[in-house]
Amino acid sequence: MQKKEKLYEGKAKIVWATDDPDLVIQEFKDDATAFDGTKRGTISGKGEVNCRMSAHLFTKLTAAYIPNHFVELLSPREMLIKRLKIFPVEVVMRNIAAGSLAKRLGLEEGVPMAKPVLEFYYKRDDLHDPMINEFHIAALNLMEKPDLTLVKRYAIKINSVLSRWMRKIKIRLIDFKLEFGSHHGVVLLGDEISPDTCRFWDARTNEKLDKDRFRRDLGGVEQAYEEMLKRVLTI
Amino acid sequence: MQKKEKLYEGKAKIVWATDDPDLVIQEFKDDATAFDGTKRGTISGKGEVNCRMSAHLFTKLTAAYIPNHFVELLSPREMLIKRLKIFPVEVVMRNIAAGSLAKRLGLEEGVPMAKPVLEFYYKRDDLHDPMINEFHIAALNLMEKPDLTLVKRYAIKINSVLSRWMRKIKIRLIDFKLEFGSHHGVVLLGDEISPDTCRFWDARTNEKLDKDRFRRDLGGVEQAYEEMLKRVLTI
Repeated sequence: MQKKEKLYEGKAKIVWATDDPDLVIQEFKDDATAFDGTKRGTISGKGEVNCRMSAHLFTKLTAAYIPNHFVELLSPREMLIKRLKIFPVEVVMRNIAAGSLAKRLGLEEGVPMAKPVLEFYYKRDDLHDPMINEFHIAALNLMEKPDLTLVKRYAIKINSVLSRWMRKIKIRLIDFKLEFGSHHGVVLLGDEISPDTCRFWDARTNEKLDKDRFRRDLGGVEQAYEEMLKRVLTI
Repeated sequence: MQKKEKLYEGKAKIVWATDDPDLVIQEFKDDATAFDGTKRGTISGKGEVNCRMSAHLFTKLTAAYIPNHFVELLSPREMLIKRLKIFPVEVVMRNIAAGSLAKRLGLEEGVPMAKPVLEFYYKRDDLHDPMINEFHIAALNLMEKPDLTLVKRYAIKINSVLSRWMRKIKIRLIDFKLEFGSHHGVVLLGDEISPDTCRFWDARTNEKLDKDRFRRDLGGVEQAYEEMLKRVLTI
């Protein structure tokens, strides 16, 4: 597979064209940002951890009938993926109160939600990704109704299987962010599943093993990412 | 109907007990607040306008099969209502971008939404009434699922009939806030329908005839309220 021109460079990933218009290469960087890009840094080895963890989880999700963009690992930090037209809507699933949810609803961090919570955010850097609902999605024509229905169903199913897998490796899946897109009209899960996009807490100690270590200057960031990769690869 | 002890005093209304435990008196004040209570003032005659307009619209809504708490007008600023256990969720319906929606989604004020937008807000002064969705409502157990389904249906129906009535009196119904509650297990529309809770624009001039005149110091506040009442009473 020939790596061609750069299509897009984001905060944590670069997307490269290939000689197949349906396939692109997703390269994972060590760059880290937080708080709307106001905090910046590097997490050494993050690109590899996120790439390998995502590859492993995407493969498992394919087997669990969750269609996604993953094709194959090309190198420790590059994966071949199906080219998606990404919906401008982030999907967040939450099982335990943390981060912005805890703050917004006045809940103590660590309090379990009585039921999983699904949230939508409008991907608009200039508006700081505001929370939206299904009526906004329809009114702004951000997704077609059948695609939205599928995305909700997939997100709930992914939460259920991921939570189960994480319990096996003694991790509490607190919350996570998903992105979906359309490939030839078919809805696929895209982006990544990693400590950058999920909150993972050690089930015994409640130690944070995710990007909150970077966001909150808790130290041991690289070790937390490595520890998560090690455990996930045993799933 | 005997007016008994004060049950509740809010920013714009007082609720009084009566000798019937199922009925209370809602008294409308001239006090006005905005921006989370940080701006305060008085709009002379507002209590009467809001009480009489609400009474008129509630009566019309009853005839349109929207069950609500209104029983009868007792004085120009007092109405007898069914006692509700108010759900801690505000419902906002929006037809045209304005206020916080315009700001949050980066839309110019006055742009019509392709479809009406329904939003939920968690009634929590200490949290500044954050926007929530149906998953938060379920997880926090703020409303039972069948009540939520009814509330959505009523809000959409109310938007449709109110918009139609407003067109007749040359008013654009931009957006409005509703509160619902439960009376012996039955979901009823509560609160008020007035220039305090709706955005009304003159259909010809786009002149604001609602509380935005107070919020934004546009002047002619009392006249706008009086003009709206005059028109609504002809519906």
